Amino acid sequence: MAKVVRVNMTEKKVTFEPVPEQYGALGGRALTSRVIYDEVPANCDPLGPYNKIVIAPGILAGTAAPSSGRISVGGKSPLTGGIKEANAGTPVAQKLGRMQIKMIVVEGQASDGLYLLKLNKDGAELLSADELKGKMTREINKTLFSQFGEKTGIMTIGVTGDFRMSMAGICFNDTEGRASRYAGRGGLGAVLGSKGLKAMVVDDEGAPGVELSDKDLFKQGQKKMVDALRSHDVTKPGGALNTYGTAVLVNILNEAGGLPTRNFSSGHFDGANKTGGEAIAEAVQKRNGGMTGHGCHPGCIIRCSNVYPNEDGSEMTSCVEYESTWALGANLDIDNLDQIAKLVDICNEIGVDTIEAGVTLGVAMDVGVIPFGDGEGAIKLMEEVGKGTPLGRILGNGAWFTGKAYGSTRIPTVKRQGMPAYEPRAVKGIGVTYITSTMGADHTAGYTIAPEILAVGGKVDPLSPEGKVDLSRAFQATTAFIDTSGYCLFIAFAILDIPSGMEGMVESVNGVLGTTWKTDDVIKLGMETLKLEWEFNKNAGFSKEDDRPPEFMRYEKLPPHNTVFDISDDDLDKIWAEFQ
Amino acid sequence: MAKVVRVNMTEKKVTFEPVPEQYGALGGRALTSRVIYDEVPANCDPLGPYNKIVIAPGILAGTAAPSSGRISVGGKSPLTGGIKEANAGTPVAQKLGRMQIKMIVVEGQASDGLYLLKLNKDGAELLSADELKGKMTREINKTLFSQFGEKTGIMTIGVTGDFRMSMAGICFNDTEGRASRYAGRGGLGAVLGSKGLKAMVVDDEGAPGVELSDKDLFKQGQKKMVDALRSHDVTKPGGALNTYGTAVLVNILNEAGGLPTRNFSSGHFDGANKTGGEAIAEAVQKRNGGMTGHGCHPGCIIRCSNVYPNEDGSEMTSCVEYESTWALGANLDIDNLDQIAKLVDICNEIGVDTIEAGVTLGVAMDVGVIPFGDGEGAIKLMEEVGKGTPLGRILGNGAWFTGKAYGSTRIPTVKRQGMPAYEPRAVKGIGVTYITSTMGADHTAGYTIAPEILAVGGKVDPLSPEGKVDLSRAFQATTAFIDTSGYCLFIAFAILDIPSGMEGMVESVNGVLGTTWKTDDVIKLGMETLKLEWEFNKNAGFSKEDDRPPEFMRYEKLPPHNTVFDISDDDLDKIWAEFQ
Repeated sequence: MAKVVRVNMTEKKVTFEPVPEQYGALGGRALTSRVIYDEVPANCDPLGPYNKIVIAPGILAGTAAPSSGRISVGGKSPLTGGIKEANAGTPVAQKLGRMQIKMIVVEGQASDGLYLLKLNKDGAELLSADELKGKMTREINKTLFSQFGEKTGIMTIGVTGDFRMSMAGICFNDTEGRASRYAGRGGLGAVLGSKGLKAMVVDDEGAPGVELSDKDLFKQGQKKMVDALRSHDVTKPGGALNTYGTAVLVNILNEAGGLPTRNFSSGHFDGANKTGGEAIAEAVQKRNGGMTGHGCHPGCIIRCSNVYPNEDGSEMTSCVEYESTWALGANLDIDNLDQIAKLVDICNEIGVDTIEAGVTLGVAMDVGVIPFGDGEGAIKLMEEVGKGTPLGRILGNGAWFTGKAYGSTRIPTVKRQGMPAYEPRAVKGIGVTYITSTMGADHTAGYTIAPEILAVGGKVDPLSPEGKVDLSRAFQATTAFIDTSGYCLFIAFAILDIPSGMEGMVESVNGVLGTTWKTDDVIKLGMETLKLEWEFNKNAGFSKEDDRPPEFMRYEKLPPHNTVFDISDDDLDKIWAEFQ
Repeated sequence: MAKVVRVNMTEKKVTFEPVPEQYGALGGRALTSRVIYDEVPANCDPLGPYNKIVIAPGILAGTAAPSSGRISVGGKSPLTGGIKEANAGTPVAQKLGRMQIKMIVVEGQASDGLYLLKLNKDGAELLSADELKGKMTREINKTLFSQFGEKTGIMTIGVTGDFRMSMAGICFNDTEGRASRYAGRGGLGAVLGSKGLKAMVVDDEGAPGVELSDKDLFKQGQKKMVDALRSHDVTKPGGALNTYGTAVLVNILNEAGGLPTRNFSSGHFDGANKTGGEAIAEAVQKRNGGMTGHGCHPGCIIRCSNVYPNEDGSEMTSCVEYESTWALGANLDIDNLDQIAKLVDICNEIGVDTIEAGVTLGVAMDVGVIPFGDGEGAIKLMEEVGKGTPLGRILGNGAWFTGKAYGSTRIPTVKRQGMPAYEPRAVKGIGVTYITSTMGADHTAGYTIAPEILAVGGKVDPLSPEGKVDLSRAFQATTAFIDTSGYCLFIAFAILDIPSGMEGMVESVNGVLGTTWKTDDVIKLGMETLKLEWEFNKNAGFSKEDDRPPEFMRYEKLPPHNTVFDISDDDLDKIWAEFQ
């Protein structure tokens, strides 16, 4: 019997509740957004007593469906001031799914120290976690695994969460227990910090497993999905993602003139080749250490993650993915992979979103805090974040905050969230996604890069503004469904090109829930989630004026194409016209 | 013939234009808000190329009307993100009035250094001002007076304006040339800094004087106003303001339990008596230096300003007014007047709003940057602001920014602007003004303290929520007219109680403009200005969710009355219902 775990941090009380009927067919993002919409006053202070954190595994998490170990974390974001869902791939998702825990709702605030939530077959307990204060996440995971067993799953926040910094993410362990899989964006780590919930340990020993409504249908869907993933060039074993990881995109975006460089002042980076997936694979091979083709959770068949090695072959960090190597590489004019990997590791250790960290450092370099290209300087700045010095407090609150601190007019953010690794002036559809997403600038919210750059799901001209609003809307809606299903977003490559893959996604979900959705329902279902999120943001004070690009992208031409962002405000407003 | 001076900082070009007909009957705030509404895209970056600064003397500035030397500065605020009008009393207002300069519009941005605008009977010139960079305002005024003559008027920004900090104000000289009269609120100094306009020198030699449409009517109005000011207890010579300055309010508000203390955690301050107007007057007398009853511009008959002396009788600073002695005193738990005056002087020297500075330090103390009561520590923090260190960058961007940097939930701001010296939980009407003003938290926007605390213009219970929305609306509208007239807001005490004073205000304005307004038109005319400001804010993305108190004031009871802010959101929304 699926259940809700409600954790009241003010009263230090954990209760188990039945799943309300109206939440029965929800999971992942659809569930976190719905509960935040239902239970959190939209205009509340994100770090105050009325905000909540909802942790929900995707519908398929814990089943044998491939690449479905995703977990969603929702709340009101201290970074954007709007609703937030951030998700990660981790065994923790699967354990919660197998324990039939539909979601965990964290509410109230502890005023007497840090706590740890322990979940196992006997129930739940809040234990003191004061001894974890100030520790790096690697050390936290080591401590907790040794205390609670190697087979548990761990969620934690870093020291930046304790500091309630807006770039603090929520960290889950990977397959081998590394503190490396982040529900990173939007500062939800700061919200957990404000509540005093430092960590969660999930022990699924004796768990009943995910209840399947229709085993055969589930199996049929699962098989279709496996076949699609195994046959698509992007997702198949030995395919692009598996061989080079997501960082295979560095050279591809650079070729397209869309790799943001030196705080979004160019779309071309001379050091692209030194910092891309090919270079990472080469380092792994040469140094005879680390690995490519690593999976963030058991049962993933895409396996796009990696472990990056030190020069002597010992493990440095995991993982150097596209967004990270860009944010801490091209965006900073740093072409030294070892420095980039070191920066990734510091981000993991202190508990921050690598994208926001990189965009922030880019803004800081742009205003002259340190010069572009100064890798050692960047490492020192991130160490200041972890120490909570005044400069660390500026940087730790993100790119928008840092830009404002220094009076910058070149701040590449939307709704105060830093832009990821695709230049909106060179790839217009992803620009629409950044600008109009309920989440703030977020590539995963509607990944139009697929047709714009990779010719997946059709092929459209990235530089053209034509049709990009409709394209982005369709991607955003589909994504909202994928983020609900528990499947990794990267299944999108396969299901966009292979119709039976799309059927597989819906059938496997139906097989769990007992729903009778068709592939045609995916966009409609996704739109329902988007509408709730949009309503929440509206109630929080957002208006169409928040769906706008940074001003400088309207007048500053981006090399090498020398284009500005030229989709009009009126056209942008069409995207959510049906919500008005 | 009245004229508009347009200063294009990008092209370094100054042009004189005739006054557009529709601006003919405007001045001061009505004019700055109208031009900002007409010429500035509401959603622009306040520090970017599309924002403008409009400087407009009030309608009566430069005439013989008493206490009418006010100047308005308008722009989009980098602090609030909305429209801003900040005003000051200064001879500069009168000089511009006499030169028949209706307004100065500053637009574009210089990219090659700092400039100074020189205005005299021969026209206008932009001169290099790079040598003023990094200088304190006292030094700047000294330099410019020696270069351009003691009889000129000077506007300047401090080093914090160069840093584009959101607490940077715009400084005008007082009667004796001190750099001390601030259009302080909302960070307009940062906007001038972003444009590269460091200073303005106004030489009114040979000026034609203000053109009067109806000399007799003007004189009749002027006389009524003089009589009202000279007879009301608050404003008359030897009255409360003249004898003790505005700081006479310290003990009065403390008695009422409405003097915000230790970052708005109490309404009672044990050190009130040591830091109020009586204590200032005593210091002036004992030390045989400084002065009370000082006027900020010639022709003021209220004369509420002061000059505070060092222990040896030499001049320390001007002026220690109510807001400043509160912000840097009670709000910080500092009861040492010499430390408070020193803090005021640093604010003047580096060019910041004393209210925002004090509220910011209060927030910083509340999160533990330094302890409450640490006067020497506060002085050091303000010095960091002037140096632009990382901590100075945090503080220099105001209370909201500082609170966010440290993850605070106790940030006493509305629309990101720090609350002035009246506790909204103890004086509910002024709370409505703070919360609903187009300007962000601003006591001068609708000073309901008059009836709530001083029994001027009637007497209402400060603790009661009843009728406060209507009260605040009426005060906000009347204020918008006063801020347009050129009269000091303090005439309000007299004209609220003395009907002929109200007539005098309108008649003197009619005498200048040739309008035929009645006293009944005042609220209607004020509402027209408020509506434009509200529309601008709406177009900038504001919604009713921005007309909300800080969350903690809804749940944290304020001693000694142990009250929360209990006017509902729905009631707050009624204030601008007619604008919807």
